[in-house]
Amino acid sequence: MTVSPLAPDHFPDLPPVAGVELATLAAGLRYQQRADLMLARLDPATTVAGTLTSSLCPSAPVDWCRRVLPSGRARAIVVNAGNANAFTGRHGATAAEQTAVTIAAELGIEPDEVLLASTGVIGENLPTGALTAALPALASGLAPAVGPQWASAADAIRTTDTFAKGSGRTVDLASGTVNIAGIAKGSGMIAPDMATMLAFVFTDASVAAPVLQVMIQRAVDASFNSITVDSDTSTSDTVVLAATHAAGADLVDGLDHPDVGPLADAIDQVTLDLAHQIVRDGEGATKFVEVAVAGAADDAAAKRIARAIADSPLVKTALAAEDANWGRIVMAVGKAGERADRDALAIWIGPEQVAARGVQLDGYSEARATEHLRNDEVLISVDVGVGEGRGSVWTCDLTHGYIDINAGYRT
Amino acid sequence: MTVSPLAPDHFPDLPPVAGVELATLAAGLRYQQRADLMLARLDPATTVAGTLTSSLCPSAPVDWCRRVLPSGRARAIVVNAGNANAFTGRHGATAAEQTAVTIAAELGIEPDEVLLASTGVIGENLPTGALTAALPALASGLAPAVGPQWASAADAIRTTDTFAKGSGRTVDLASGTVNIAGIAKGSGMIAPDMATMLAFVFTDASVAAPVLQVMIQRAVDASFNSITVDSDTSTSDTVVLAATHAAGADLVDGLDHPDVGPLADAIDQVTLDLAHQIVRDGEGATKFVEVAVAGAADDAAAKRIARAIADSPLVKTALAAEDANWGRIVMAVGKAGERADRDALAIWIGPEQVAARGVQLDGYSEARATEHLRNDEVLISVDVGVGEGRGSVWTCDLTHGYIDINAGYRT
Repeated sequence: MTVSPLAPDHFPDLPPVAGVELATLAAGLRYQQRADLMLARLDPATTVAGTLTSSLCPSAPVDWCRRVLPSGRARAIVVNAGNANAFTGRHGATAAEQTAVTIAAELGIEPDEVLLASTGVIGENLPTGALTAALPALASGLAPAVGPQWASAADAIRTTDTFAKGSGRTVDLASGTVNIAGIAKGSGMIAPDMATMLAFVFTDASVAAPVLQVMIQRAVDASFNSITVDSDTSTSDTVVLAATHAAGADLVDGLDHPDVGPLADAIDQVTLDLAHQIVRDGEGATKFVEVAVAGAADDAAAKRIARAIADSPLVKTALAAEDANWGRIVMAVGKAGERADRDALAIWIGPEQVAARGVQLDGYSEARATEHLRNDEVLISVDVGVGEGRGSVWTCDLTHGYIDINAGYRT
Repeated sequence: MTVSPLAPDHFPDLPPVAGVELATLAAGLRYQQRADLMLARLDPATTVAGTLTSSLCPSAPVDWCRRVLPSGRARAIVVNAGNANAFTGRHGATAAEQTAVTIAAELGIEPDEVLLASTGVIGENLPTGALTAALPALASGLAPAVGPQWASAADAIRTTDTFAKGSGRTVDLASGTVNIAGIAKGSGMIAPDMATMLAFVFTDASVAAPVLQVMIQRAVDASFNSITVDSDTSTSDTVVLAATHAAGADLVDGLDHPDVGPLADAIDQVTLDLAHQIVRDGEGATKFVEVAVAGAADDAAAKRIARAIADSPLVKTALAAEDANWGRIVMAVGKAGERADRDALAIWIGPEQVAARGVQLDGYSEARATEHLRNDEVLISVDVGVGEGRGSVWTCDLTHGYIDINAGYRT
């Protein structure tokens, strides 16, 4: 598989997160000669929060996590890549339970302290026996979450991803320094209205579970819920934020705690970075595109308009062709169903203003717009002229590569 | 341009419609060496009804038609292909008005008896002078709407269409025989929630305008509003149904008139046939696909689920590859946001049942499913297991051809 032209140069140096151990294993469940299992063991004090797919046909691991997450506690996360364990009925539910039971016995914890995620092909039974048989070897490889362990973990959860995705921050709080590190996977079925991929963010800060839940929901809305590759929503989307309480910093026990601001900001940065990396690995992507909408009735309306533009196959194919076909942007604004004043609409391609007050600008230079579109990173800005709402959605272009990948993925 | 592999063998033989005259002209407004203007003159007694795009950034001709249509009367329809006259501000509104004024003077009618439609590139000013200068020559070519006139008219309104689209019916009413003939264009920006293209349907029956309006709305919902090529909605969508009252049949003055049933059925057949032809000419299409959903909460929910499947790029690329990747169908059902019982879901690919009660069927043969997918015409059926609602949406596959066409259309 060719690495995306938009990939970062290298996997980032992620900080160690105390209280987290990681392991990976090539179990051969689907992929050969690469790790396809990932285990994170979390310190006993760990609190967790998360968001799960909005799909009405969720996978068995999503069902499982929906039961575990409300407790706000977890001691382990098990992820397998290659088989989604979705639309597998009773067999799938049993496979999920067996996985949790087996790893719990191995680690000396309870099954309901295990979070699960599976990603890959839908509708095929997970080979439960082979998976559970691999778990002791997986657990025996656990090592503190430092340096290369992060890259290995990020690598093991990939499916069609062409590069491993990670992001980290270090935050100085009054009571001490805490670290945040996150890994993610995803490059197709990336769409609105949920954290459309897998992401696991760990911190050694001490944060009560209800506070974590507010933090992750806010972070997801501004990151994973603000990207789109193909408008499709997976059965398996899962984002987990785990706080190990191992750095020795003060307990953040309420939203009015002074550490909430800096911690939440850092988590927002990590999730946004991970979300952008997913767009950069969008199937077939050759352009990283921000669609920024202003002047909408409110922020939610701005985001819906931005998403209509970002999801439009006609806009995305024009971007792939570096064609400043801004009429398609007008079309997408028109179909978004949100209030917009056609005769006040303004459009920019990069720094070049294309249109104002509902018509092409007199001095508009298509050559300058096209020059901007030749970049790897493209900015489309629209002011819809009715209010103060603003918001961005990030996407990629739609290319022959997307079709190559998706017409051949399974076989 | 290569003709779609799904195109019919030839343009159909359409019946003459008394009270309609047609003309076309190669005005060279955008295309060279092909007709790009179409005029229909309608008898004085003609009643009209129509539906217009739901886009909030409609074209100037759509604005114009929105003012004219409520009168229920029209004497002429002018269509130009190549320039949409959309997002052209005051210039566009003036261009539309000038077109109506000029053709009205030429034909001795009033401007507000003229319906207009423009299709093509968005955001470029219509060359008003060249257009109005061409109208006298266009009008001089008017001839009764028989045989080859229909094919010429259908040809002149094309943009990226690879074949001209027409459909006709003859209906025996108690008071005499009436004819129906329709033409349409469209192959991209074909999407939900409005008659996503241009279509003009003519009949020599005598029908009061309010009855026509009910007939066309019903027909559009079941045809043009039930197809999708790329989920994009045009700024210019227009469907007009004109009844010339010229066949001498009884006036259909209310919905309880006995002729309403047979007339509406025939109109439904014509619009569905035209809608299917648009899908067959979907940009890059190599498969004509029906997505039939049953067991939904109601018919509207069934159609929304069918549309989620039909709009999914992952489903459409799998169809292009003749890959029986039915997990993507599950994904699309899950993201539709309508009630569905994952554990009661049943899926068929053609005659081959894939899944029942939320899991793959024991006897499922991927080879047989793949065999069905090798056909030009594909049927995907889903029962979501919660109610009695059913509905179909028609679409095409997503291929490299779509990207070739849309990355190169303007330039």
